Amino acid sequence: MATIKDIANKLGVSVSTVSKGLNGAKDISDSLRQAVLDTAVELGYTSKKIKSLEDGAICIFVENMKIDSEDAFGYDIVLGFRQAAFRSSYDIVVEEIDPEFQEAHRFESYILEKGYRAAFLVGFALQDPWMEQLQDTTVPTVLLDNFIPMNPRVSFVGTDSEEGIDMAISHLVSLGHEKIAFLDGSKDSMISDQRMRAYLRSISHHHLPLDPSLAVYGYFVADAAHYHVPSFMDMGATAIVCGNDDIARGVIDSCRDLGFSVPEDVSVIGFDDMPFAARLNPPLTTIRQNRLELGKCAFMVLQTLMEGVSLSKNLLRPSLTMRASTAMAKPRVMVRRTDSKDSVLHVNPRLYEETLKEQQQS
Amino acid sequence: MATIKDIANKLGVSVSTVSKGLNGAKDISDSLRQAVLDTAVELGYTSKKIKSLEDGAICIFVENMKIDSEDAFGYDIVLGFRQAAFRSSYDIVVEEIDPEFQEAHRFESYILEKGYRAAFLVGFALQDPWMEQLQDTTVPTVLLDNFIPMNPRVSFVGTDSEEGIDMAISHLVSLGHEKIAFLDGSKDSMISDQRMRAYLRSISHHHLPLDPSLAVYGYFVADAAHYHVPSFMDMGATAIVCGNDDIARGVIDSCRDLGFSVPEDVSVIGFDDMPFAARLNPPLTTIRQNRLELGKCAFMVLQTLMEGVSLSKNLLRPSLTMRASTAMAKPRVMVRRTDSKDSVLHVNPRLYEETLKEQQQS
Repeated sequence: MATIKDIANKLGVSVSTVSKGLNGAKDISDSLRQAVLDTAVELGYTSKKIKSLEDGAICIFVENMKIDSEDAFGYDIVLGFRQAAFRSSYDIVVEEIDPEFQEAHRFESYILEKGYRAAFLVGFALQDPWMEQLQDTTVPTVLLDNFIPMNPRVSFVGTDSEEGIDMAISHLVSLGHEKIAFLDGSKDSMISDQRMRAYLRSISHHHLPLDPSLAVYGYFVADAAHYHVPSFMDMGATAIVCGNDDIARGVIDSCRDLGFSVPEDVSVIGFDDMPFAARLNPPLTTIRQNRLELGKCAFMVLQTLMEGVSLSKNLLRPSLTMRASTAMAKPRVMVRRTDSKDSVLHVNPRLYEETLKEQQQS
Repeated sequence: MATIKDIANKLGVSVSTVSKGLNGAKDISDSLRQAVLDTAVELGYTSKKIKSLEDGAICIFVENMKIDSEDAFGYDIVLGFRQAAFRSSYDIVVEEIDPEFQEAHRFESYILEKGYRAAFLVGFALQDPWMEQLQDTTVPTVLLDNFIPMNPRVSFVGTDSEEGIDMAISHLVSLGHEKIAFLDGSKDSMISDQRMRAYLRSISHHHLPLDPSLAVYGYFVADAAHYHVPSFMDMGATAIVCGNDDIARGVIDSCRDLGFSVPEDVSVIGFDDMPFAARLNPPLTTIRQNRLELGKCAFMVLQTLMEGVSLSKNLLRPSLTMRASTAMAKPRVMVRRTDSKDSVLHVNPRLYEETLKEQQQS
C-alpha cells in the first residue's frame, strides 16, 4: 500500500507538504492540495479519515467494461470517481458483475445485504435485469450512459453527444468537406440514437445535403467498417465520422484496403479519444470524452442525490482532439461501384425525414 | 443578524445542538446537521468560518426576477444556493441588475473589478448583452434556464421539461382526457420550445390525435388565456395544460367567464408550482419545479465547474402536485363558436409535422 513518501516522490514535493494536503492545512494552494489528494487515490493510499463501513460504502458496479489498465475505457472513470469521493472521505468498493449475477441477486436486496449507501453503475445495457428494477429503487444511484425515467433517486451522467458530433461536423466543414458519412454504433443503444440524431441535425444545420445512404448503424454487421466503407466511397464521401474510436480504427483499415489514403483521400473522425487513438496510423482525430471528469461528475451527482436533490440528466462537455486523420477535402474521382447493399442498416427513415423537413423549412 | 439562539428556537433544539451542527461535531445525525445549516442560512446567520472576500465571493446575478419574499419565484432558488454554499464556507453576494447595467459593464471586467470567483445567473433572457459575452468567458458560470454552446466554463441548470409535461399529460390521460390543449409561454424562449416539443411527443406517445389548433404559444397576445381559451373550448378540449402557473391562472378565469367550471367541465394544469398556485380557486394541479433544489443543484454544478470539470447541461426531476383543478373527463356539448382566430400563434408547423410523422410511423 502506498505511503505519504510515495505520494511525495511522485509529485516531487516534501512529505510535510503531502501531509498538509491530506489534512486540509491552509498554507498550501488549492491546486496543490487537489494534486496531493488525486495522487493519493491514484496510488491507493488509504487515510484513517475514510468513513468506516458502518456508515456504508458507495459501490461502483462495473459490467461489460474493462477497468484494469490505463488503456481500458473504464479505468479513468473509476479513478475520477474515487478521487472525487476521497475528498469527502467516502469508502468506495468496486464490484465487477455480469447479467447472471443480476439474475441471482435483486439490486435492492444486494445493496441492503452489503450495507451500501449508494451505487454508480457503468457499462450496463438497457436489457440488463437490474435496469428494470431501477425504475422504483430508493437507493441513490447514478448510471453512466443510461436513463431511467421518472425515478427521482436515479440520475444519468454522460457526455453531450449532440455537441460532440456537431464539433466533428463543424471541423470537417471548416476543412471544405461536404459529403460527410456517419458510421454509428448499435441501433439499440441510447447513445447511438443520440449521435445519429445529432449527425442529422448538424448536417442540416450546416446546410449540407442529407443522404440516408451516408448515415448507417454498424453494430449488427460483424465487420461494420469493411461492409459500409465501400459504399460510402462509391457515394463520393470525402469524410467519415464514426460512432466511436473502435469503429474509426476499422474504417481506417477499410480505406487502406480499398486503396484510399487517410487523410489525403478521406478524413476520419472517431468518438471517445481512447488511449489507442493516438497510436493509430495515422493518429486519430476524435471527439474526446474526458473519462476522469465523467467519474468526478458521477460522484458529484451521486452526492447531490444523497442530499435529497433529484438530478435527472447531467451532461459533460466533449472536446475535439485534433490529430492527423483529418485534412482539407480533395475532390475525388469515383473508383469502384458495388451493388451489394441489401442488408445495410440505414438511418431510421423517420429520423431522416424529420430532419429533411426541418432543413427544407429552415 | 440571527444568533445561534434564534436557530435553536426555530428548530426547537438546544443551543449546544446548534453549535454541534455548525461545527461539524460527529454526535448529531446527518439530517439534523443539515437542518441546522439550512436554517442558519435561512435566518441570515453568518459564521466566522465563511471564507474572506480575499478568496473571492460567488455572485448571484438576478435579472427580471423577484427574490424579495417567500412568494417570489427566485426566493427559494437564491436560498437553496446559499444553503448549499454555506456548507462549503463560500461567501455569497447577490446583485440585482438590468440590461442597462449589462450595457455599461462587460461581464468579465465586472467580475474582475469586484474580485468574484464565479457567477450564477438567474432570470436572464437570450437577448441580454451578457449572454453573447458568455460564449468565451473563462469565469465559472452557471445559468438558470439558458444554454451557451461550446464554452466549457459555462453550465446550464434547469428542470426536465420533457418529463414534466409528460407527467401532466399522463395524469390527464389516466383521468380519461383525450382532447388536451396546450397554452405555452413565449415563442422566443428556449423553455417554451422544450415544453412545446415535450407536449407534441407526449400526445403522440399516448396515441392521442394531434391537432395543431390545440397547441399555441401565448406570450405575444396581451391577455393570452382570454384569447385562446374560447377556441380551445370550441374544439372540444376537456383539459388545458399551461406553460406556467400564471398562464393557468388566466385560463381558469377565462373558463369561468365563458361559463365553464374547473374542474367539472375542464381540467387545468400549470407548471412551476408557485406559492400562489395552492391559493387559486380551485387550487391548481401543477408540475412542480423544486426551486430550493434548483438552487442547491446550481451551486453543486458551479463548484464542479470551479474544480475544472466541464458540465454542460444539468436537469432536475419535476414532480406532479395534485390539487383540485383536474378531474375525470366528462363528454362536453359544444356551446359556442367564434371565427376570430386569424392572429393566433400556433405551434410551429415543422414541429407539428415532425411529431405527426413520428406518430404515424410508430
